[in-house]
Amino acid sequence: MLKPTPFDIYRGLKRPTQVLYPKDVAYILYMIGAKPGSTVVEAGTGSGFLTISMAYFLGESSKIITYDVRDDTQRSAKKNADFLGLADRIIFKLGDVREKIEETDIDAVFFDMPDPWNAVKSAYDSLSPSGSLVVFVPTIIQVEKTFMSMRDLFVDVHAEELMSREYQLKENAVRPKSIGVWHTGYIIYGRKSLKGD
Amino acid sequence: MLKPTPFDIYRGLKRPTQVLYPKDVAYILYMIGAKPGSTVVEAGTGSGFLTISMAYFLGESSKIITYDVRDDTQRSAKKNADFLGLADRIIFKLGDVREKIEETDIDAVFFDMPDPWNAVKSAYDSLSPSGSLVVFVPTIIQVEKTFMSMRDLFVDVHAEELMSREYQLKENAVRPKSIGVWHTGYIIYGRKSLKGD
Amino acid sequence: MLKPTPFDIYRGLKRPTQVLYPKDVAYILYMIGAKPGSTVVEAGTGSGFLTISMAYFLGESSKIITYDVRDDTQRSAKKNADFLGLADRIIFKLGDVREKIEETDIDAVFFDMPDPWNAVKSAYDSLSPSGSLVVFVPTIIQVEKTFMSMRDLFVDVHAEELMSREYQLKENAVRPKSIGVWHTGYIIYGRKSLKGD
Amino acid sequence: MLKPTPFDIYRGLKRPTQVLYPKDVAYILYMIGAKPGSTVVEAGTGSGFLTISMAYFLGESSKIITYDVRDDTQRSAKKNADFLGLADRIIFKLGDVREKIEETDIDAVFFDMPDPWNAVKSAYDSLSPSGSLVVFVPTIIQVEKTFMSMRDLFVDVHAEELMSREYQLKENAVRPKSIGVWHTGYIIYGRKSLKGD
Repeated sequence: MLKPTPFDIYRGLKRPTQVLYPKDVAYILYMIGAKPGSTVVEAGTGSGFLTISMAYFLGESSKIITYDVRDDTQRSAKKNADFLGLADRIIFKLGDVREKIEETDIDAVFFDMPDPWNAVKSAYDSLSPSGSLVVFVPTIIQVEKTFMSMRDLFVDVHAEELMSREYQLKENAVRPKSIGVWHTGYIIYGRKSLKGD
Repeated sequence: MLKPTPFDIYRGLKRPTQVLYPKDVAYILYMIGAKPGSTVVEAGTGSGFLTISMAYFLGESSKIITYDVRDDTQRSAKKNADFLGLADRIIFKLGDVREKIEETDIDAVFFDMPDPWNAVKSAYDSLSPSGSLVVFVPTIIQVEKTFMSMRDLFVDVHAEELMSREYQLKENAVRPKSIGVWHTGYIIYGRKSLKGD
Repeated sequence: MLKPTPFDIYRGLKRPTQVLYPKDVAYILYMIGAKPGSTVVEAGTGSGFLTISMAYFLGESSKIITYDVRDDTQRSAKKNADFLGLADRIIFKLGDVREKIEETDIDAVFFDMPDPWNAVKSAYDSLSPSGSLVVFVPTIIQVEKTFMSMRDLFVDVHAEELMSREYQLKENAVRPKSIGVWHTGYIIYGRKSLKGD
Repeated sequence: MLKPTPFDIYRGLKRPTQVLYPKDVAYILYMIGAKPGSTVVEAGTGSGFLTISMAYFLGESSKIITYDVRDDTQRSAKKNADFLGLADRIIFKLGDVREKIEETDIDAVFFDMPDPWNAVKSAYDSLSPSGSLVVFVPTIIQVEKTFMSMRDLFVDVHAEELMSREYQLKENAVRPKSIGVWHTGYIIYGRKSLKGD
């Protein structure tokens, strides 16, 4: 039997509402610069795909705090984390990050929620100096609103869209697959500015 | 002063010959499933961008063995690793992986070299059961040759191309930047098959 | 000497403000379904690239009416059309299509202007039954506003973005060029609805 | 009732084997620079989508000669052309362009066939001075072989890939559609060189 890889985690958790794909999760993990031992806050928990990926990659010395306003979502994500033996690295919290993130001195914050701009100030308050905020949204209107809410509090703010194109592997006929995923979402990145302190 | 992030590593190391971009490094790290404590073999060292990124993300309990046939390249990469305090996690080796990879029971192997198909057997021999091989090449002809050399020894073989599109962030005028990077390379992935053993 | 082609027209007219590229002009010509003998209204004239392309492809029996609010722009476009011997198929008009398009029973209308939504009613009034309106805009916010203004007056409304990726042609090393144009604009299409009449 | 547009032609002819999409047909028409009255040679006929599009756009003074080695394909395409009232502009020929194109002094030649490199010399011989050859192929290996066969006989040879990304039009939620067509084929263009004559 093969040992589980991140792709297996992805396949195991996939759901109709899934928008984060491996390409996005990989880049988000890279952007937040989360190395073993980091403490990361995330909202919302969603399917738990990023939550569990973070627990997997950051190792046992790390701490992932994941907020969601929905109890059922969290219970399902927790069950997945338990099954994979990663639940002890994750704290599941029922709560609204638009009001407050209780933790402080956090290395990185990640938002995947409909109105992240309403939680940008909470992220700023909870981040350690030069900590990273990464936001994932599916529409350009959300990119603009998020950017407007970040530009005074964060530096090095930029936005990108990652596209993955799969190839058909066949002798003498290697070419891109005809049909594929053209859109998942946009990623916005910024680092807490030290100017205001 | 801001703490260094992976993006800073990238900017610091960038060179004219650089082909691996953050989007690729992020996805490669994800694909190989390398968590803290993993042992990874890489060839060639190149600018050392992936080498150093692996050392950063995999933590102090990890071991990165990086091969190159050129001495000057390795010395320059080693200097960068020293500067960032990550050199003790990396073993720099002058050698040709097409002939042999000396280590065995390796978690993952990564190739960024002109003719990876000539080193696929070496990777197979050095990988632990179900270990991952990830290959990065700039042309489709190389994708085909790599695939042909992997298909009998590896399972779950697939190939992808990642594209990153940057956005201009400006009030009322958020849109993709006009000019950008359209191509870096293709990523091929496979896991060591257990059938033959 | 080689005879001029549409690509030569493109190269001859190129300017810093150019946003329409051959890929866009080609698709716009296709979308409006303009065959020899058609009558087409356009605003604004801009560099005249589409104006002249339409005159070239639609032939001498066609009529292109091009509006612009700026006199200098039109004079420069007219000079280009004269030089190419196509000026007799084009009527240059100084005027604001947001107020009125004087012509009626038009086969197709094309807009490349900052606020096309303010001219959608003019287009509707000037189009013949089932005539096509095609709009080109550089941002998603403009796509949304244009769509909102069209959805009650037009049917079959859809929007697309065309991307062209150029390849390096070299023996054993065919691959996409590293750097290229990632964005010009979005194309919105609709046909005049007959419901309201 | 709405008058038929090129999109209607496309929808009417669509088949499982269809690879040419409107974006490709539009750009091919533009590239060959075919204006009213042109004479164009095409092989193979396939579904007849390009054949009929050319007849539509080039008008009644044009002449389209379309070759195919299969009789059944041509009969089906001819039926479509008849139905649309465009058959008198098209000459259907059963024959192999790899052996010979009978016509000379042709304005443009288009190939959509498995081995266009074997017909490049025929195209050269039948084209008028500075005439255009446009080729459509689905794989990069075919791009390379076509390029190698064209580079001594044609000038201004280049290759491109067009991608169309469709958008979801919805108030406050305009964004690219999640799933779409990522690949149809590559377009290679060149003009007959006058050097050899």
